[in-house]
Amino acid sequence: MHILRSPAEFADEISELIRDVGRHTRFCSRCQNISTSDMCAICADSRRDGRVLCVVEEPVDVTAIEKTGAYRGMYYVLHGALSPMDNVGPEDIKTQALIELVKKEGIEEIILATNLDAEGDATAHHLAKQLKSLKVKTTRIARGVPVGGDLQYVDEVTLGESIAGRREIAQKPEKN
Amino acid sequence: MHILRSPAEFADEISELIRDVGRHTRFCSRCQNISTSDMCAICADSRRDGRVLCVVEEPVDVTAIEKTGAYRGMYYVLHGALSPMDNVGPEDIKTQALIELVKKEGIEEIILATNLDAEGDATAHHLAKQLKSLKVKTTRIARGVPVGGDLQYVDEVTLGESIAGRREIAQKPEKN
Repeated sequence: MHILRSPAEFADEISELIRDVGRHTRFCSRCQNISTSDMCAICADSRRDGRVLCVVEEPVDVTAIEKTGAYRGMYYVLHGALSPMDNVGPEDIKTQALIELVKKEGIEEIILATNLDAEGDATAHHLAKQLKSLKVKTTRIARGVPVGGDLQYVDEVTLGESIAGRREIAQKPEKN
Repeated sequence: MHILRSPAEFADEISELIRDVGRHTRFCSRCQNISTSDMCAICADSRRDGRVLCVVEEPVDVTAIEKTGAYRGMYYVLHGALSPMDNVGPEDIKTQALIELVKKEGIEEIILATNLDAEGDATAHHLAKQLKSLKVKTTRIARGVPVGGDLQYVDEVTLGESIAGRREIAQKPEKN
């Protein structure tokens, strides 16, 4: 109905864009992120740190992490998370290609940045088990109180994890 | 108006409770938490770990952390946070008594669990500086994605901190 009520040029434009997605957009052969060429802009960027690989569930997670400006390593997109309730097993998400990638490249650290819900945790747990034999350092993003957060309004589990995951404050030498 | 509309017994009860607060409730002489005796139930509990001290802004924060069940150490309540905007300086919150306490007791770790907002951070920063000369290990609770959280819906600063504060996954030896 929206297209019907719009000028014909709008329909042409939408039609062209959708055709473009089908023709020119694909998944990066290395990280599985959305890309317009065989290898995406991040994987092709030699200034990024190839020793660290951040594993996420969806392409939007790459966008979210890129926005933080806090990360200069590479990514790997699983396109999903394990969910026995929905019949999604390890063969349905791209875990095998990840294992192959880690084996092939000299990766020193895998950051498991799947969501911090039941599915994301199950996926991180599964991957950690798979990666164990590869002797690569495996880390999980921190659970904790969001920045700006008030202790009283945070759920108990998060607050407990925030205490368990406390970090030592780096003491800079006194300036005299 | 609520009291006026309620039975007279209700007014009596409220009046009695308020009198009780004035007469019997005080601050614990050690941790400054609300108490009905000179030393509160937590400070008096010999089964708790006296080597760890968790510094919070308000008594409600003690309640919140106790609910998590994740902490078995002691507390110290500042009754506020530094806030230059509101004219609250170090002398207005109970920092000096905290320093004295750390000097007197064999405390090995101070967990700075002030809120993760500007005031809480300023307070944690101030205390870390004060505690530096005492050579006690000083930690800050973790910032990060709340449990159950989706990466896409978390603010950039928190997501960045969650990556920076990632923790290595403990790899248990394979059971055969």
